[in-house]
Amino acid sequence: MNLIEKSIAAIKPLNHNVYQQANQRLANQARPAGSLGLLEPVSARLAAIFGTLDVRLDNKVIVTCAGDHGITEEGVSLFPQEVTAQMVFNFVNGGASINVLGRHAGARVIAADLGVNFDFEPDLHIFHKKVGKGTANFARGPAMSREEAARSIDAGIEIVNELAADGPLDLLGTGDMGIGNTTPSSAVIAAFSGIPVDQLTGRGTGIDDDALANKIRVIEDSLKLHQPDPNDPLDVLAKVGGFEIGGLAGLVIGAAAAGIPVVCDGLIATAGALIAYELAPAAKDYLFASHRSVEVGHRFMHERLGVEPLLDLQLRLGEGTGAAVAMELLDAATRVLCDIKTFEEVAIVDVQR
Amino acid sequence: MNLIEKSIAAIKPLNHNVYQQANQRLANQARPAGSLGLLEPVSARLAAIFGTLDVRLDNKVIVTCAGDHGITEEGVSLFPQEVTAQMVFNFVNGGASINVLGRHAGARVIAADLGVNFDFEPDLHIFHKKVGKGTANFARGPAMSREEAARSIDAGIEIVNELAADGPLDLLGTGDMGIGNTTPSSAVIAAFSGIPVDQLTGRGTGIDDDALANKIRVIEDSLKLHQPDPNDPLDVLAKVGGFEIGGLAGLVIGAAAAGIPVVCDGLIATAGALIAYELAPAAKDYLFASHRSVEVGHRFMHERLGVEPLLDLQLRLGEGTGAAVAMELLDAATRVLCDIKTFEEVAIVDVQR
Repeated sequence: MNLIEKSIAAIKPLNHNVYQQANQRLANQARPAGSLGLLEPVSARLAAIFGTLDVRLDNKVIVTCAGDHGITEEGVSLFPQEVTAQMVFNFVNGGASINVLGRHAGARVIAADLGVNFDFEPDLHIFHKKVGKGTANFARGPAMSREEAARSIDAGIEIVNELAADGPLDLLGTGDMGIGNTTPSSAVIAAFSGIPVDQLTGRGTGIDDDALANKIRVIEDSLKLHQPDPNDPLDVLAKVGGFEIGGLAGLVIGAAAAGIPVVCDGLIATAGALIAYELAPAAKDYLFASHRSVEVGHRFMHERLGVEPLLDLQLRLGEGTGAAVAMELLDAATRVLCDIKTFEEVAIVDVQR
Repeated sequence: MNLIEKSIAAIKPLNHNVYQQANQRLANQARPAGSLGLLEPVSARLAAIFGTLDVRLDNKVIVTCAGDHGITEEGVSLFPQEVTAQMVFNFVNGGASINVLGRHAGARVIAADLGVNFDFEPDLHIFHKKVGKGTANFARGPAMSREEAARSIDAGIEIVNELAADGPLDLLGTGDMGIGNTTPSSAVIAAFSGIPVDQLTGRGTGIDDDALANKIRVIEDSLKLHQPDPNDPLDVLAKVGGFEIGGLAGLVIGAAAAGIPVVCDGLIATAGALIAYELAPAAKDYLFASHRSVEVGHRFMHERLGVEPLLDLQLRLGEGTGAAVAMELLDAATRVLCDIKTFEEVAIVDVQR
């Protein structure tokens, strides 16, 4: 078996006993049943992942996967490709949005080069996992080879394994950086779902109406050209994906294989999560959707994944920023389950039972 | 002038210069303009409240106002009235939901007795502000006298003043406890808005269809009986409100008068905020809506207030739990404004300008 197959085979089902105990405790707490909404199922699932009602998410890491995209030649983005590398330096220097929100959430933030069109010095403090210097323009040919697609997923799995070997890891957040990468992300959900491209395509960093119409046309034409097979996630990734999207898929598979919950960010990170899910449906047990982004395609990804995002803050930044904010909710959920007393513990009569 | 009038007169407009500086900095940060969604206006408003771009919400307090309701005689709630006092003890002992979520948010939680039908020992660590031992059944006569309504608002203002005199206070959260108190809360928004009661009334702690139909009828009949004057918030509070709802209004007015941001919780806390707003529209500048609750009337309160809630976690607990979770977002927003570097600071060309 290769690394992807081995990792998928290693994904274990959740601890069903602890899951039931958790739901029982939630139902017995001195408050109306179900009154803590989405925090309740989150807390029960975290308990089932860790096999305990007292989950402590002390060690959080956000990995921001970066890559460049040949499709930017088609005028699908507002920013020039150089910004991807510049933002990687910004991440390393700690002044970017994800650094600030990661710090607030108590998470370490590490960037990963999956395919930036720039030669980083080997001693730069990032994960060096370059598969190529940007994808090819998938309006003309496939974004990458099938082999490169597999290698980008491998890279994400390797990152998790390296992090886990390095010390305790309780929660992984996934984020992206890549000028032009809402285009492959919308293409990925279109390829899997068959939903019309114009329903799945948004303005990314803020393109105008004409550029949006062009972006939709580019995706439609590319899908017609390549006919990616929705039953073959590697084919989808290779033909219309991106190196960082593959890395983001690998992060989800790697985390699930290691028994670590993983919270995915916006459109691009969720495109990666979707590829992970299509390859390994069992990975979903370990996956949390952080937020619903302004990007219209995001909602359809969540629907296909069957997950409910925790936040709707009208974010559309990426980098892992939504994942960072959601980490604080996951943290809060662990305390909800463990620390709120039951009716019995506080001697209040529960009329609901 | 009495305390309410004096406090309303003391509400100052926000610092417009700092507000503009904040928005300029947000627009110049190295990320697509507007990409941090709701966190951006929140951060700018906090800056304008404190008159600085570097806001630090170090000292947070959540006040959970408790009161009982004569309207429970009409069978509008699932739980018996005794639970209100029992939950106050639960708050003091630190095992309730709000204690757990307040702790997670780094906020002190203090309960306040505005009108619980129980004699608490004077040395119990709560705010002792009892206006009466539960309201009267407003299906038969007014919930309280006009004088008591004013006194309950005074009590909320006094609580803020006592907290502020006690030490630094950077952020106030408001929460409620009171068996039966979704009924007066729905009645309050119905009285102000004229929207049909059945559109504003939910299941509270979880009543069934018959009980819901009864609850709607009770509110409709009470509004017909009392004809509260929507232009006279004290009249609305007195006729169909609650002591803790008056206290919650006072907290908002007191916080605004003291220049302190205040984040309100669910249906009941927002009913209080609405009364504050109807008395003192300027208080709104200091008000943040934490979340959209499952209770259907909540949305209409937010619409009337013209505020957008930060969270939609399907909460319906009260106590201040939504306010506690939202406090972490407000905290994150302060870091967004202050710590994310601008294009100039990181030497990336901003194509948007």
